[in-house]
Amino acid sequence: MSKIRIAVSGYGNLGRGVFAALRQNPDMEPVALFTRRDPASIPSPAEGVPVVSVSEMDQWTDKVDVLILCGGSATDLPKQGPEAAGFFNTVDSFDTHARIPAYFESVDSAAKAAGHLSLISVGWDPGLFSLMRVYGQGVLPEGESYTFWGRGVSQGHSDAIRRVPGVLAGIQYTVPRPEALKAVRAGENPELTTREKHTRECYVVAEEGADRAAIAKAITEMPNYFDEYDTTVNFISMEELKRDHAAMPHGGFVLRSGKSANGTPQLVEYSLKLGSNPEFTSSVLVAYARALFRMKEAGRTGAMTVLDVPPILLLPEDPAEVRAHLL
Amino acid sequence: MSKIRIAVSGYGNLGRGVFAALRQNPDMEPVALFTRRDPASIPSPAEGVPVVSVSEMDQWTDKVDVLILCGGSATDLPKQGPEAAGFFNTVDSFDTHARIPAYFESVDSAAKAAGHLSLISVGWDPGLFSLMRVYGQGVLPEGESYTFWGRGVSQGHSDAIRRVPGVLAGIQYTVPRPEALKAVRAGENPELTTREKHTRECYVVAEEGADRAAIAKAITEMPNYFDEYDTTVNFISMEELKRDHAAMPHGGFVLRSGKSANGTPQLVEYSLKLGSNPEFTSSVLVAYARALFRMKEAGRTGAMTVLDVPPILLLPEDPAEVRAHLL
Repeated sequence: MSKIRIAVSGYGNLGRGVFAALRQNPDMEPVALFTRRDPASIPSPAEGVPVVSVSEMDQWTDKVDVLILCGGSATDLPKQGPEAAGFFNTVDSFDTHARIPAYFESVDSAAKAAGHLSLISVGWDPGLFSLMRVYGQGVLPEGESYTFWGRGVSQGHSDAIRRVPGVLAGIQYTVPRPEALKAVRAGENPELTTREKHTRECYVVAEEGADRAAIAKAITEMPNYFDEYDTTVNFISMEELKRDHAAMPHGGFVLRSGKSANGTPQLVEYSLKLGSNPEFTSSVLVAYARALFRMKEAGRTGAMTVLDVPPILLLPEDPAEVRAHLL
Repeated sequence: MSKIRIAVSGYGNLGRGVFAALRQNPDMEPVALFTRRDPASIPSPAEGVPVVSVSEMDQWTDKVDVLILCGGSATDLPKQGPEAAGFFNTVDSFDTHARIPAYFESVDSAAKAAGHLSLISVGWDPGLFSLMRVYGQGVLPEGESYTFWGRGVSQGHSDAIRRVPGVLAGIQYTVPRPEALKAVRAGENPELTTREKHTRECYVVAEEGADRAAIAKAITEMPNYFDEYDTTVNFISMEELKRDHAAMPHGGFVLRSGKSANGTPQLVEYSLKLGSNPEFTSSVLVAYARALFRMKEAGRTGAMTVLDVPPILLLPEDPAEVRAHLL
């Protein structure tokens, strides 16, 4: 059987993770890396895989089954997603929740016009966590859903720390409050404020002679990012930062606490404990690229999300095999 | 919008649970209860819902959108499933894992011949747990999957206890071993024997003057049911049994412990803590009846499982609504 031909656009943590994940999925093969940079400046990401300028995408339309877009959600994907859907079937990890409806529409139009299929917002949140919210609400229509994130690194909040005057480097961990999780698991269906759900832990390398008290104050009172949370600021050395905080762990919890019709409590809990956030997200992207390819083969076009994908399409095995062994 | 018309076959714990669950899902309405017993002997399960003999199913084919089969897997469903698929679109909770392939084929043939759609093996295991095994293996192809059941009541093992001479009544709980769960969560990917995964707790009411030691020995050494487990037998009074063991709690855990391609550990865990096993299973059946109805409307026929169902079809809301709020 011929392999599913995968191209990747973008070569940051996520793009590198996709090439790594493809090694674990022998029914797929990488065929190209697209970049906006000078292709000559980037080494081949895998044996025999060329690095190609994004401006040459149009020459690859019949050599690629699925393009995995590994750009960022803030500025890259809103432009790249619809553009790429004109050339290829695409998978991306667009994760700005509030802008998903608009992004969906723009990719849907482009993909439909070109006869392609595009799967947006793939990963773990949005992604696997979205699936759990839907399953939870579907099977327990009377109840409450809760999502907790962490313990894990938030890139946005880490960036915000690094913009504070006097800060050389820093990292921020989002941490679910154990007492909030406990109340949800106990079936109490609490109404939780932002402050009651998560705390924020910052590890900061200050410039020599910087006013640490002022830095801590600037961080903990920062609007939108930290002011609604209980935030702790720990000053560490650059050496400690590099030694103890190089990994990008993350994870979280989705819970559905409901009652069946006779008032009986029922609890569903899903959790992820990820050694590397980008590597896991890449693994999810690759599995959904397989599913996308199959749905396209079955004639589907336009935009869709993980919520539209029959789970059995994620596995390379024959459906009868899956039913016999995993059902 | 007209409601999805649901009929139910069988009126044990599961059938009663379906009528209860329908009260939580206002886009569906119960229209008939089919029974093999004398219909006059069963009170109407919901206002205005007639109790009808299964022999009259053929007169209801244009009055029912989906029939939910609530018979047992041992003897009822292997016969009822294919028969009913000749009259209606059906949903069932067939749960004899080893016989799923054969059952799938027989229902698939019957449903295809009649132009109907049938969803088999719906519930939590098989069902939601199957979904988690598939998602886990899909996103972490290199790793191990683990399923633990309990703490919860096993009907089969409770029945086995009650067949032991000198036993008046009894109940059996399956319990996951905390140390096994702990090893899996720690990413140790242990190879676990049957004995290492679960223990079994029995609560037995003995006949007056019965030889309790003999009863305990007969239970703990019973082949297939108990001999491969560490089993504890507790003798209690009939009063205690009724007071403390009337509920039918259950639940369990599905874990996927794997590594992404660079060797980074990644852990996925799903768990259910169910106040009532049959009520929860009924809730799952009803949500999937909605999805089945929509897939039939889209032209699909034959047999399928939860693994074939796009999750978004479980919810009554418009897809754009779901994307905006749950993705």
